[in-house]
Amino acid sequence: MKFRRSGRLIDMTHYLLQHPRQLISLTFFADRYHAAKSSISEDLALVKSTFEEKGIGSLHTVPGASGGVKYIPMVRLDEAEAIATQLTKRLTEIDRILPGDYLYLADVLGDTPMIHQAGRLFASHFAQQPIDVVMTVATKGIPLAYAVAYHLGVPVVIVRRDSKVTEGSTVSINYVSGSTKRIQSMVLAKRSLDAGSNVLIVDDFMKAGGTINGMISMIDEFQANLAGIGVLVEAAGEGGERLVDEYVSLLRLMKVDATTKQIDVDKGTFFQLYNSSSKEETTS
Amino acid sequence: MKFRRSGRLIDMTHYLLQHPRQLISLTFFADRYHAAKSSISEDLALVKSTFEEKGIGSLHTVPGASGGVKYIPMVRLDEAEAIATQLTKRLTEIDRILPGDYLYLADVLGDTPMIHQAGRLFASHFAQQPIDVVMTVATKGIPLAYAVAYHLGVPVVIVRRDSKVTEGSTVSINYVSGSTKRIQSMVLAKRSLDAGSNVLIVDDFMKAGGTINGMISMIDEFQANLAGIGVLVEAAGEGGERLVDEYVSLLRLMKVDATTKQIDVDKGTFFQLYNSSSKEETTS
Repeated sequence: MKFRRSGRLIDMTHYLLQHPRQLISLTFFADRYHAAKSSISEDLALVKSTFEEKGIGSLHTVPGASGGVKYIPMVRLDEAEAIATQLTKRLTEIDRILPGDYLYLADVLGDTPMIHQAGRLFASHFAQQPIDVVMTVATKGIPLAYAVAYHLGVPVVIVRRDSKVTEGSTVSINYVSGSTKRIQSMVLAKRSLDAGSNVLIVDDFMKAGGTINGMISMIDEFQANLAGIGVLVEAAGEGGERLVDEYVSLLRLMKVDATTKQIDVDKGTFFQLYNSSSKEETTS
Repeated sequence: MKFRRSGRLIDMTHYLLQHPRQLISLTFFADRYHAAKSSISEDLALVKSTFEEKGIGSLHTVPGASGGVKYIPMVRLDEAEAIATQLTKRLTEIDRILPGDYLYLADVLGDTPMIHQAGRLFASHFAQQPIDVVMTVATKGIPLAYAVAYHLGVPVVIVRRDSKVTEGSTVSINYVSGSTKRIQSMVLAKRSLDAGSNVLIVDDFMKAGGTINGMISMIDEFQANLAGIGVLVEAAGEGGERLVDEYVSLLRLMKVDATTKQIDVDKGTFFQLYNSSSKEETTS
């Protein structure tokens, strides 16, 4: 069946969005729509300009016989700020404060459409880097990690606190929790991570960074490489040392005070890093 | 800025895919593109026919002043079968068999693109029913539950085995594990589920159904309603009683035998139910 341009543009948009960072040849589209490659090229130019204009992402063209296009997720600064503002509004609702000045976040982390957007944000930050897999630790960070992995087109591996019979052989490591200084352990199924993989760590919350440090040890244990760290919310240090240096956070929790019912949230490092990470895209 | 038809179709496709089951007014699109409603109607007709032709989904038109369009995820039977075949191929790799004839599934459950497709499958099955939230239990089912929730445009709530300080007040219930007959407990944060919500349970694996039965008790405890049950893989009963009657499964694990290195997988109830669930769509 032959597709008219309108039909091709609609289906192409859907197809590209479902295959982020994957090289798709012009021949594939030409066959799919029984159309000439020249028509496909024109279609892709239209998709590219709309994606860029609307801040959906970018299409990178790889020339040559084995070439094609790649959809790279991208988020405009104003859109990123809108997502951060929306999240901040949710986070500063005063009934979130739990005993011990903890913050209830489960509803935000389960808000699929919002987490999907946050995932796109992290994916856009790391989209130009070689990332093979996203790693997180059970339980709360999983939806965000899944969302980031989806937008990067890579699998997700989940580190657990305890080993299960359904995991097979596991590697277990001990680490020091940053805030409580307790020794804890985490396990990962032996076959879930290949040596040499480039691993992006994603988590929902980082205080001193002990858990993330644990995941870094796990990556070492598997002879894989740390490619980056993304956390939705980091807690500003209270004089305490941060165990992790380089990370991308969307928001920074400055203060939680149950007595004054005050929650202060600031923008995270994502925004300081924004220009450097997007430079490559705008010049390409 | 004015958008030509091609640009509108591309952006519209992206927007609709990101807002499943949500009513979007013609006015919204007319304003977004500075276009006449009549042009928007024509655009939507093109999107609808391509979505349906390509098996992406359907657009339901709601007439009247407060009307608009809704994108409903839909999966064609041949596509569903292709996903099931692909999953079956993965599941029957003989090195998946673990001691005790358990099956290693973590890599499949972490295969984001595949789980995204499986999520679309379950979402398409339940898309026409009133579902407010997807529920799962930590840990392995979370990516699938997230994917289903994403395609339905609803949040996900995660039941845990143990309560955490970051959950606030929780409701705890005891249930009998179907296969081992042990008493176990699960907890859910009190504020994570509203009374009267329609809840879709999603899990990765069901044997006798004890865990799912536990989630049903939890739903009762919150005075919410069970709207449906979806499991990626069900294990065929070995004479044992199934604790749950009505569910949608994608695959059925018939046999795992470590000595003969045999894994038999069959299609799940999704395919028996396919015609009844899609009838509404094809006639609308």
